[in-house]
Amino acid sequence: MEQMSDVGLIGLGVMGENLALNMERNGRKVSVWNRTVPGVEEGVVQRFMEGRAKGKRISGYLNLTDFVYSLSHPRVVMMMVRAGEAVDELIGLLTPLLSEGDILIDGGNSDYRDTERRVTACRAQGIHFVGAGISGGAEGALRGASIMPGGAVEAWPVIRSLLKDIAAKAADGTPCCDWIGPGGAGHFIKMVHNGIEYGDMQLIAEAYFLLKRAGNLSNDEISHLFSRWNEGRLKSYLVEITSAILAYKESDGGFLVDRILDVAGQKGTGQWSVKSALEMGIPFGLIAESVFQRIISALKDLRVRAAQVYDISDNSPKIEALLSITDLEQTLFASKLVAYAQGFDLLSEASKRFGWNLDLASIARIWRGGCIIRSVFLDELAQAYEEIPLLHNLLLFPLFSAQIKDALPAWKNVVALAVKEGIAIPAFASALNYFYSLTTENLPANLIQAQRDYFGAHTFERTDSMRGCFYHEDWISLK
Amino acid sequence: MEQMSDVGLIGLGVMGENLALNMERNGRKVSVWNRTVPGVEEGVVQRFMEGRAKGKRISGYLNLTDFVYSLSHPRVVMMMVRAGEAVDELIGLLTPLLSEGDILIDGGNSDYRDTERRVTACRAQGIHFVGAGISGGAEGALRGASIMPGGAVEAWPVIRSLLKDIAAKAADGTPCCDWIGPGGAGHFIKMVHNGIEYGDMQLIAEAYFLLKRAGNLSNDEISHLFSRWNEGRLKSYLVEITSAILAYKESDGGFLVDRILDVAGQKGTGQWSVKSALEMGIPFGLIAESVFQRIISALKDLRVRAAQVYDISDNSPKIEALLSITDLEQTLFASKLVAYAQGFDLLSEASKRFGWNLDLASIARIWRGGCIIRSVFLDELAQAYEEIPLLHNLLLFPLFSAQIKDALPAWKNVVALAVKEGIAIPAFASALNYFYSLTTENLPANLIQAQRDYFGAHTFERTDSMRGCFYHEDWISLK
Repeated sequence: MEQMSDVGLIGLGVMGENLALNMERNGRKVSVWNRTVPGVEEGVVQRFMEGRAKGKRISGYLNLTDFVYSLSHPRVVMMMVRAGEAVDELIGLLTPLLSEGDILIDGGNSDYRDTERRVTACRAQGIHFVGAGISGGAEGALRGASIMPGGAVEAWPVIRSLLKDIAAKAADGTPCCDWIGPGGAGHFIKMVHNGIEYGDMQLIAEAYFLLKRAGNLSNDEISHLFSRWNEGRLKSYLVEITSAILAYKESDGGFLVDRILDVAGQKGTGQWSVKSALEMGIPFGLIAESVFQRIISALKDLRVRAAQVYDISDNSPKIEALLSITDLEQTLFASKLVAYAQGFDLLSEASKRFGWNLDLASIARIWRGGCIIRSVFLDELAQAYEEIPLLHNLLLFPLFSAQIKDALPAWKNVVALAVKEGIAIPAFASALNYFYSLTTENLPANLIQAQRDYFGAHTFERTDSMRGCFYHEDWISLK
Repeated sequence: MEQMSDVGLIGLGVMGENLALNMERNGRKVSVWNRTVPGVEEGVVQRFMEGRAKGKRISGYLNLTDFVYSLSHPRVVMMMVRAGEAVDELIGLLTPLLSEGDILIDGGNSDYRDTERRVTACRAQGIHFVGAGISGGAEGALRGASIMPGGAVEAWPVIRSLLKDIAAKAADGTPCCDWIGPGGAGHFIKMVHNGIEYGDMQLIAEAYFLLKRAGNLSNDEISHLFSRWNEGRLKSYLVEITSAILAYKESDGGFLVDRILDVAGQKGTGQWSVKSALEMGIPFGLIAESVFQRIISALKDLRVRAAQVYDISDNSPKIEALLSITDLEQTLFASKLVAYAQGFDLLSEASKRFGWNLDLASIARIWRGGCIIRSVFLDELAQAYEEIPLLHNLLLFPLFSAQIKDALPAWKNVVALAVKEGIAIPAFASALNYFYSLTTENLPANLIQAQRDYFGAHTFERTDSMRGCFYHEDWISLK
């Protein structure tokens, strides 16, 4: 009789294949299955088995029942399929085949509210459902990803060693995976991770834009600069690959980056994070601007027309001398802090609201390796939350406030320079305005409250009264 | 036998009462009803009947059936109750009492998707459901509001004269009410109206903040300035009341605005508009920043603490000479154009997506009177859309692009000044960056696409290839 498999994997896209190979490399016998849709998905399992899975302890199945029955008890099935209805359909197919105590892991980018619902529904059938955010792209899936499992905590002792084995390892050797919390907690923090990723990427893009437009630097020079920044506090995967991308030449010697159309795509999790921030009342301007900037990038035809209408050319004279490289590094770092401050505020609020009891230091540590936003900075961030677990806002942590104070003059210079020179830096500007707003004791919202009371009798609080007492002024008498 | 009423009104909050009085003043006999919740809402109808409704052709009912049977056919019932479940509950109570062809109008701030659903559900029962956005606050409800009805078009011939009579009249005498479109169209445009309102208010607050902090002007001086601006192209209700608010003194001679706490509330429609923009892929940075800024305003304790941590005081030396009042007027106007460009882009996209066939010129005209954002500017805006109905973006309309070109140097000056002086102006900055982005032929999104392809094989388009062809580069080979 054939040996039972340790784990089953469903969905042989690039992520699924790579995770299966990763599990196998880590000593697991793996069963795989993929749906067959005539004309769309045919022969997927066969191709994998005859290709990358050849000679490995991986068994391919064409029949879902055979696949499930090939797994040892309690069964562990990881689903790597498109988020949404496909997950519910798959759960519907699987649950009649599974036994009590079996474990279903959704490794896709599911909406955390769907995960919340699925955990509850599966629990009623004796199945432990886990929603695991996985970041790291194709490479992370193969070599080690950042994994954020949440949901039915009963599953954790069973899947812990598997997930930690296939996870990336931080510089200190710690696996980038730990239990996040109940319900949709795992997918929620993956969503916030992606929101921060949008911010990080937009900030790097703005730095590149300034270096190109205001600094008049060549791709090679910018690549070298990012490479140098990657040796300091900005050291991170995104800075590293930015350097590699800027240096990358095609066979004719031309830079590929210059031939890539400036139209950025998006798959939804960035938007979701902004919507969650709106729902939970967390300021999220930098990340929102980053999402909107991708949308503007996609309006290419409109931009070309608008540039003509306003007679604005990319080839306007460069302004070499003004942009300071050290100022830009300061700006990038301070703005990055704001992206994380906004993201972690959202985590903190969700933790309170849903009773998830999130360990923010642990989350920062999970993100230190494998995932797209991995960076040395996350070590400091974890330290901040370890020292002050209820730290209300990252910018108030002494280590960071000292760096922001130091960066402030440079940050102002760079944003003002871009404003004066007509260079779009929505995320840098939003970050600086967030910092200004957060550190302003008296904002002009008194006027907004007065207006709201004037036209809608929405009432206001008074500076000369207790908080929580609301007043209405009869600004104009209605006759 | 008592004469039948022309219209019934349910929900005697301030808006409901005022609308009933407005209808009566316009020659309608009105029946009113309010639910009775022991200990919460008791004697509401009696109080209204013995108070403001006394001696008027208004009949109060304590029983819903009597209320419904007091109405002439086809019955017209306007509901002014809290958006959400209360509306569905009320519909559930009313439909058994109504007859085929009767009309239900929801005048609250309902989510347009709820309205969409209710129109369909009521249609199945022979009831014509209308979702009418109403703006103008308490005063508008009484004296004339801006009314945006959408839903079951069969209702329109019946309710047209009623709604136009109680609507505000624009300067040229046109009622600020017209049929918007099917389904949730009426409530959708009310939601966008409110999003623009958030932007308008935040921009005015930033102008006030700059005048106070960088201009060192007194409340009286700022009031006079807004009053002067109210004679030019900024003429609008919000500018007018800002002037009145800044001049308003309490009995001891102190300015009330200085005693109002800088903590702004919000009721949700601003957020909704940002979420819709995210869902429909419309850049909405200015309005998003305005919503987030209200959230930051509410974090008063955190701001006070952060100001201490960063040793930032409101009493830092003022910088009188630098702020130019004419520059600020230009900045306010140009930024306002951006708020409307974003709002109308969202309307335009919703119209396409839902097949609503919205008349954007008509919507601009409806907003000229009664509503919170009423202004002379809306005349120009209506004109823009009349001349070019498919105008893709307001900023490309010659009349507006000429004004933006003229304003640009001032706009840069003001934003750069605020950045340098540490004054939070997130909406001005977002507006300027939106303008820059929209008029930039080549944004740095090529780098973002390269990153996405690098870590996630998300592919990119090429500048040297046709649009719609997607390429993937094997940046690093996975072994």
